Amino acid sequence: MKKMEGELEAELKSRALRVTEAIEKLVPLEHPRPLYQASRHLVDAGGKRLRPAMLLLAGEAAGGDPSMLTPAAVSIELIHNFTLIHDDIMDNADVRRGRPSVHKLWGQSGAILAGDTLYSKAFQVLGLTQARTELLLGAMNMLSRTCTAICEGQWLDMEFESRERVSVEEYMEMIEKKTGVLYGAAAGMGALLAGASPEVVSAMDEFGRMTGMGFQLQDDVIDLVTPESVSGKRQGGDLAEAKKTLIMIHAFANGVEVPVFGERNAKPEQIGKSIAALERSGSIEYARSRAEEMVEKGKRALEVLPQSKARATLLQLADYMVKRSY
Amino acid sequence: MKKMEGELEAELKSRALRVTEAIEKLVPLEHPRPLYQASRHLVDAGGKRLRPAMLLLAGEAAGGDPSMLTPAAVSIELIHNFTLIHDDIMDNADVRRGRPSVHKLWGQSGAILAGDTLYSKAFQVLGLTQARTELLLGAMNMLSRTCTAICEGQWLDMEFESRERVSVEEYMEMIEKKTGVLYGAAAGMGALLAGASPEVVSAMDEFGRMTGMGFQLQDDVIDLVTPESVSGKRQGGDLAEAKKTLIMIHAFANGVEVPVFGERNAKPEQIGKSIAALERSGSIEYARSRAEEMVEKGKRALEVLPQSKARATLLQLADYMVKRSY
Repeated sequence: MKKMEGELEAELKSRALRVTEAIEKLVPLEHPRPLYQASRHLVDAGGKRLRPAMLLLAGEAAGGDPSMLTPAAVSIELIHNFTLIHDDIMDNADVRRGRPSVHKLWGQSGAILAGDTLYSKAFQVLGLTQARTELLLGAMNMLSRTCTAICEGQWLDMEFESRERVSVEEYMEMIEKKTGVLYGAAAGMGALLAGASPEVVSAMDEFGRMTGMGFQLQDDVIDLVTPESVSGKRQGGDLAEAKKTLIMIHAFANGVEVPVFGERNAKPEQIGKSIAALERSGSIEYARSRAEEMVEKGKRALEVLPQSKARATLLQLADYMVKRSY
Repeated sequence: MKKMEGELEAELKSRALRVTEAIEKLVPLEHPRPLYQASRHLVDAGGKRLRPAMLLLAGEAAGGDPSMLTPAAVSIELIHNFTLIHDDIMDNADVRRGRPSVHKLWGQSGAILAGDTLYSKAFQVLGLTQARTELLLGAMNMLSRTCTAICEGQWLDMEFESRERVSVEEYMEMIEKKTGVLYGAAAGMGALLAGASPEVVSAMDEFGRMTGMGFQLQDDVIDLVTPESVSGKRQGGDLAEAKKTLIMIHAFANGVEVPVFGERNAKPEQIGKSIAALERSGSIEYARSRAEEMVEKGKRALEVLPQSKARATLLQLADYMVKRSY
């Protein structure tokens, strides 16, 4: 566990700022104003803007002018926020980024529409990117295929809830679709719009997809190892909610006793004992090492690119995605 | 009131068939199969496929090869069905096209995702249209702007429910966005992808938008004048549900007494009396004549096109949209 390196933090912050400013211009609070307020609610709450940063860095690393890519970066962030709004309805989640979720404030119908609006705005905004028409069309195709895959991933995630058991392969497919492909699209679209060759675009897509999956696996680890005082989320919350993470799949396969699994009212000390059992069985370490494997695989894909400041930052970002502690 | 002309019916049917066959190929029942079953549920229930037919006819009337435009026609139908799925969740509607609505069968979360899937599939499928890249990009921009406007229209429709009064201008804005723009996009995209000039594209968009608004106004009339035995829907249902249609806006402005307005449990004879009052006050005739005005305006826009079989069919379709009785 280490804090984000100061240098990486500065690189990400400057890009996040650029994206945030562009959102203000590209998704203005138009008529009907409450619809756009609902659509912007989560977007304006911030978040780390890792996906648009990855798009901008990938474009730069592939030799493009990143200032041309800002609308594309915004489109990726809008798609991410659209999925969060709809997921929160489905998961009945009341809080997101420390704010009440969109459906808590504007009702379920309002939240469905706010998400739908961001969805189409993302394609509109992507269309504003200054790039050759065939590149832009390629980026649009990439984004629409990605959105379809995200829906498939969310469907699988929901389906797994009602299942007794989920295999490692099934779990990896789910997180690839639910989380990996959007990072893949971010890096791939950045490279594509910068005019990179199909080989480079495909390598960048691989980089984003693998590091995105590592990011998700690390999220599962963080749930267990990070105290609420640091993460702002209940430690072991995934256990209490019976989430079939890779850690639990390993534990089931190895006959580990996890008595709090699915016990929504479990007490912190009971949860602590189950977490200790998952440490002893190597289940947490298993997920952590799979996460690092994914990230290493992603980093190797970057070898197609020439050395550059942007490539070095992408490598740092990849490390951060599995070394962050919250 | 007259039945659809036999000739028009045949023209529409052959196009509907082509679109239905293409959906089977372009939106296959992939993994995860239940997601695609939910996505296809309403699409497969049929409907008249008026929007894709308009796209194909517009492309043909503008001198294009309609066989190239089938994917674009499918994309318009997918967007239409996506909006129906999400609207049914928001309106808590149990039945659509004589079938249980998607959220009744797959739950609310399943229906949100089924709609989202059709949304992205529509853009994917549009991307398969064989046309020059700049035309395809123009069509994608048209479709994304249209989807944003539809969200705005649905938001306004919901907002009107909680209002005491709605003006004629506000109502017309709402139906333009909720219904008009998708017909506008259908005709406009057909012409654009056929390589028509910006003037022709804009005239076709006007044709679709105006006739689409006429279609919606006629829907409000049909609710009042068509018996349940013909329409399959409760006669005067909009009155009982307190819908602020153009008919009711006229009635309010003219002090007409409509005692069943908002009375969900009103009996058929009470509803009949209120309908008679709306006939006497000219409120129904007002909406009917506004609908015909819109359609006439739309038809005039078609004068930019040379005479052709497809243009003649579009004119017949325009008439049908306000002369249909259900």
